[in-house]
Amino acid sequence: MRAKFDAILSTITPVDQSLAPAGQAHLDNLTKPKGSLGRLEELALQLSLVQGGQAPKADPARVYTVAGDHGVVAEGVSLFPQEVTRQMVLNFLNGGAGINVLAKTAGVELFVVDAGCLGSGFAEHPQLIQGKVAEGTANLAMGPAMSVDQCLKALLLGVGLADRAQADGVRVLGTGDMGIGNTTPSTALYCAYLGLDPAAMTGPGAGLNQQGVGRKVEVIKRGLAANAAVIARGDALEILAALGGYEIACLAGLILGGAKNRQFVCVDGFISTAACVAAWKLAPAVADYFVLAHSSAEPGHRLAVEKMGKRPLLDLGLRLGEGTGAAVCMFLLRSAAAIYNDMASFAQAGVSEGV
Amino acid sequence: MRAKFDAILSTITPVDQSLAPAGQAHLDNLTKPKGSLGRLEELALQLSLVQGGQAPKADPARVYTVAGDHGVVAEGVSLFPQEVTRQMVLNFLNGGAGINVLAKTAGVELFVVDAGCLGSGFAEHPQLIQGKVAEGTANLAMGPAMSVDQCLKALLLGVGLADRAQADGVRVLGTGDMGIGNTTPSTALYCAYLGLDPAAMTGPGAGLNQQGVGRKVEVIKRGLAANAAVIARGDALEILAALGGYEIACLAGLILGGAKNRQFVCVDGFISTAACVAAWKLAPAVADYFVLAHSSAEPGHRLAVEKMGKRPLLDLGLRLGEGTGAAVCMFLLRSAAAIYNDMASFAQAGVSEGV
Repeated sequence: MRAKFDAILSTITPVDQSLAPAGQAHLDNLTKPKGSLGRLEELALQLSLVQGGQAPKADPARVYTVAGDHGVVAEGVSLFPQEVTRQMVLNFLNGGAGINVLAKTAGVELFVVDAGCLGSGFAEHPQLIQGKVAEGTANLAMGPAMSVDQCLKALLLGVGLADRAQADGVRVLGTGDMGIGNTTPSTALYCAYLGLDPAAMTGPGAGLNQQGVGRKVEVIKRGLAANAAVIARGDALEILAALGGYEIACLAGLILGGAKNRQFVCVDGFISTAACVAAWKLAPAVADYFVLAHSSAEPGHRLAVEKMGKRPLLDLGLRLGEGTGAAVCMFLLRSAAAIYNDMASFAQAGVSEGV
Repeated sequence: MRAKFDAILSTITPVDQSLAPAGQAHLDNLTKPKGSLGRLEELALQLSLVQGGQAPKADPARVYTVAGDHGVVAEGVSLFPQEVTRQMVLNFLNGGAGINVLAKTAGVELFVVDAGCLGSGFAEHPQLIQGKVAEGTANLAMGPAMSVDQCLKALLLGVGLADRAQADGVRVLGTGDMGIGNTTPSTALYCAYLGLDPAAMTGPGAGLNQQGVGRKVEVIKRGLAANAAVIARGDALEILAALGGYEIACLAGLILGGAKNRQFVCVDGFISTAACVAAWKLAPAVADYFVLAHSSAEPGHRLAVEKMGKRPLLDLGLRLGEGTGAAVCMFLLRSAAAIYNDMASFAQAGVSEGV
């Protein structure tokens, strides 16, 4: 399984930057002052490069909202009871959650994935992918959350999601997560991968008070200590297994699979960005294929993003996860592609250029 | 005309804040941690209050892109030749400009308004409103850009645009501008209304170099000096006449008309925000009815917005005007309304609430 995964990683290569000047020249020739559509122009160019220098296409787009449970919830790191992961999967399938509403408004597809929820499988549903690797992770505060094999299964599940989307003609992927307690493994991953401090990185998640955040910091510190030998070895896959979760590893696989397939990836907030850091550590060339959709209200996100040297697109105070920021981002990507493809040039419109 | 205008101003009243707790309780009961959809929740609540506490509706939405020319262009404050105002109006009518593409992508209507372009009227077009008050303003560096009567005509033109939209069932308005040189009057208005410093407020507009910006600062200082007596009297209407422009006054009227009609207004970037400051000075209660769509890349915008105590919704480095940021904002407003209206409550979805 590791060999299969490594073979996938080896196919992920940077975009061809030699195509950038032609794309930029096209944008600069449209009827607007140069660069005056800011990040929408940057997005249009990036999307074009991901698609091999073609006129960029932002549709069809699909969000995968991936769910998993976390053994570390036993440490009291979440305000919500653990059964909410499962309840929310049902809410996704019934169309009542934030991601349902935002994906529909943005005109993008939504699939829900059970990567590792507690309990048995869910009833079949056309929007559900049953990919359960195990019934929740082990408690990362006591040792590895997953075995390396389990983590590989979740990663390959994610790669398979990208491939399935590719087979359906999907050009743009969005990452979404659901998992009670999953800001804890995400924070641990940021600390391990980026050398960040647990006390600075740990936030309230779904609404912990100050005392709860203090307890969460201690749990994360214990997790980093319990997995110190793995972290010290510096193998990105082993670290993901030790501190991650099934939905996080699956999302890392989705991002890697997207890059492999030359699909553009809209990375949602705090949990998805942790998955993205894992993907980036596994295959640095993925950096060309994604945008961070938004700056999460979870305070550690800003520190992590700064360390990555990336600028999220939106800053709307979102901290829901599920892919909600990614869905909004997909609309901006569509707007960016439309600028590239549908605006008139100065010559076409008979508009004088600046001196 | 002044009496008619003052009668309009007197009908602009704050939203009924006593309706806010019920709207907030509705949002808090939806299946997400409280407040986790951030500014989208704030927008949903504001839209509901604008609409009298009803379930918020973000459609139909319409952008008015209003054009005018500026005598101050004779001072060399713009990189683009003045005929571009007219050329861009034709580009709008032919569907090739940034605002055409972004309004279409966002699913909102677009109308183009000649409030004061140079030259004779344009050929009739179903999307064009011929409202020319005069063929361009006088040079504000030498004295008032408009007479108070001309300014009132432009303001009433804008109120009429809001009324026309209201008659068509439009619930959300977007402001857009086109006018070569119009960052100069806008900057002068910010300085006069908000007591800001011309040197700190003046930026490159459509692309001036450092030397050009220096010249523009001097022109604005001369304009403030030439109109010092008016500014000192502190009458918001007279200041708008002295330093504004036809499209700016028309947009101020549009914002005022929207507030009068209880329509929600998405205010675009640097020029539209200057119009918004004028509207606010004329009728402070308009503050309840608008959102600043985005933070303009024109550097003075941040200072002005800070002085207003408002937070723009987006920060995408846009500096095109035309209503481009407002169109993107309208999509977010639609997303916000969908959250309010279409998400399941905890009870409906059978999801456990946080402890």
